[in-house]
Amino acid sequence: MPELRQDYATKEWVIIATERAKRPHDFLKGRPEPTPLPSYDPKCPFCPGNEYMTPPETFAIRDGTLPDASGWLVRVVPNKFPALIPNGRPRRSRSGLYLRMEGIGHHEVVIESPEHDKTLALLSQSQVEGVAKAYRSRYQALNANPANELVLIFRNQGEKAGTSLIHPHSQIVATPIVPVPIRRVLYEAERHYDAMGRCVFCDILEHELDCGERIVCENQHFVAFVPYAARVPFEVHILPRYHQASFGEFPDEQISDFAAILKLVLCKLYFGLKNPDYNFAIITAPHYSQGDPHFHWHLKILPRLTTTAGFEIGSGMYINVSLPEENAKFLRECEVPQE
Amino acid sequence: MPELRQDYATKEWVIIATERAKRPHDFLKGRPEPTPLPSYDPKCPFCPGNEYMTPPETFAIRDGTLPDASGWLVRVVPNKFPALIPNGRPRRSRSGLYLRMEGIGHHEVVIESPEHDKTLALLSQSQVEGVAKAYRSRYQALNANPANELVLIFRNQGEKAGTSLIHPHSQIVATPIVPVPIRRVLYEAERHYDAMGRCVFCDILEHELDCGERIVCENQHFVAFVPYAARVPFEVHILPRYHQASFGEFPDEQISDFAAILKLVLCKLYFGLKNPDYNFAIITAPHYSQGDPHFHWHLKILPRLTTTAGFEIGSGMYINVSLPEENAKFLRECEVPQE
Repeated sequence: MPELRQDYATKEWVIIATERAKRPHDFLKGRPEPTPLPSYDPKCPFCPGNEYMTPPETFAIRDGTLPDASGWLVRVVPNKFPALIPNGRPRRSRSGLYLRMEGIGHHEVVIESPEHDKTLALLSQSQVEGVAKAYRSRYQALNANPANELVLIFRNQGEKAGTSLIHPHSQIVATPIVPVPIRRVLYEAERHYDAMGRCVFCDILEHELDCGERIVCENQHFVAFVPYAARVPFEVHILPRYHQASFGEFPDEQISDFAAILKLVLCKLYFGLKNPDYNFAIITAPHYSQGDPHFHWHLKILPRLTTTAGFEIGSGMYINVSLPEENAKFLRECEVPQE
Repeated sequence: MPELRQDYATKEWVIIATERAKRPHDFLKGRPEPTPLPSYDPKCPFCPGNEYMTPPETFAIRDGTLPDASGWLVRVVPNKFPALIPNGRPRRSRSGLYLRMEGIGHHEVVIESPEHDKTLALLSQSQVEGVAKAYRSRYQALNANPANELVLIFRNQGEKAGTSLIHPHSQIVATPIVPVPIRRVLYEAERHYDAMGRCVFCDILEHELDCGERIVCENQHFVAFVPYAARVPFEVHILPRYHQASFGEFPDEQISDFAAILKLVLCKLYFGLKNPDYNFAIITAPHYSQGDPHFHWHLKILPRLTTTAGFEIGSGMYINVSLPEENAKFLRECEVPQE
């Protein structure tokens, strides 16, 4: 019997299609072993020596080298083909019946490593910590500007996930509005807080830790689990264990735990499912909701093992062809090589 | 300068990324000419002679032949691997903190033609009318059951759009709940009606017909246009010209106009953009909102020329790398061979 499950935070229903359900190993069928890439590509704008090919950097981890020179570990630069550009505060205007505004905001690229061929999962713990520091530093800088209502950090791994450049990188977009679907999550979280006096994500976390069957891994400050109403196979959410509305509140001493859990989950996907394409995004409180008692930032990883089709596009509702509990068990038990 | 545009019906903002904008012809680069397929595949469950490979049909257009025998023009059958199954009304229950319900509903497949190789765009006008009749007949039957809160008709063309079977077909899913994103559209439409006393889609249609620059084609009963805040390149909406909340209200005498405009838009995509993968879905009033003065059914076609990535997945907001007005002009001027 198929089943519908409601996401406790967003109130969205997801169909868990047991009649067409795939076992974790079914997703491995026909998937090739990951193939090595060259560790340097002279034409790649993100490779060392090609710093002149990008706009001037906004952040870097360097050992005494000059900005925009070689000799960095992590580097953040404005996107050369930005979706939004910085230029004060956007003005709204009418176009006939419709509302429009200038495309003001920021669009940056986090170059995660000087090495062309290393995906984020395979970087060293200290390198992933460098990436986490870049995320936090740029988040804080962009979020300080009130024209940036939301700062979204995300990553596209592989062609099916929409990436065009191989060199490991993530992106940060600061938008001049709060997107409607994010507003909805905030609104539902606020309703829950009104009723229960608790953060809905804190409640979910407590429940998941109690019941344990969807937990993937955890450390002192973070927990990773497959959500009860996962939208796609092997969806994983990473949440700070203690309430934090915004990614900006994330203190120094938690960086290494954040890097460790992110690396571990990505490694479990890489080794367990043979390097699947995936997207991840950090969903955090908007500029005007920093410190909210009812929101809780989280990182959502959505592997692209299946294709969203007309049903999802038409209804906005998902059909998941796998069981969240089975996916979690598979990932929990998946061992990864030690560094 | 990039631009944000607000969808007048859903209130969602879309980024029109002019800095990375592609001209209509850019989407054609490297696309192969469509290749012919065999017109019959003895292993295909949807090919004539293989009717025994599907569950018994729920609808067919036949010229005196027996149900589930060969000799049909259009055939509707339950999906062999259904996402939802019919079994009365679903019961809700708790699973710890969470709400779940039985996966009750319907999942049917509309086999659009006996020919294995003909995509919907290339079927004859009378064959597309047959498909439209199948949609309407099954919509009316499924919608009559109050356990089916929403009936969604959709089509996946090509691998990128999530189809696994080549034989031309569409699908119908009846869900026991109204998906949250559809509720939101209804809610915004209701707010507009409260304020203006008019259907927001009627207002959009009137405005689009007045200004003309986003119109793709029109006939007596239907209009096709690229929406002002199109989410993806070459998105096209088809609306009945006069107010109709539900696909079920769609009268007999409009079937040929509906088939004609759907065929024409799909042909423009097929010939103009070399058979792109696409999804379409018919968004219609839920069971309990039939005849609503504020909703207006529409068919949305979303070509899969680009890949939604972490930004869209994280924020629910879209970045469109093309200009809706340019896309509309390209499609409007694209000539298609006459039957």
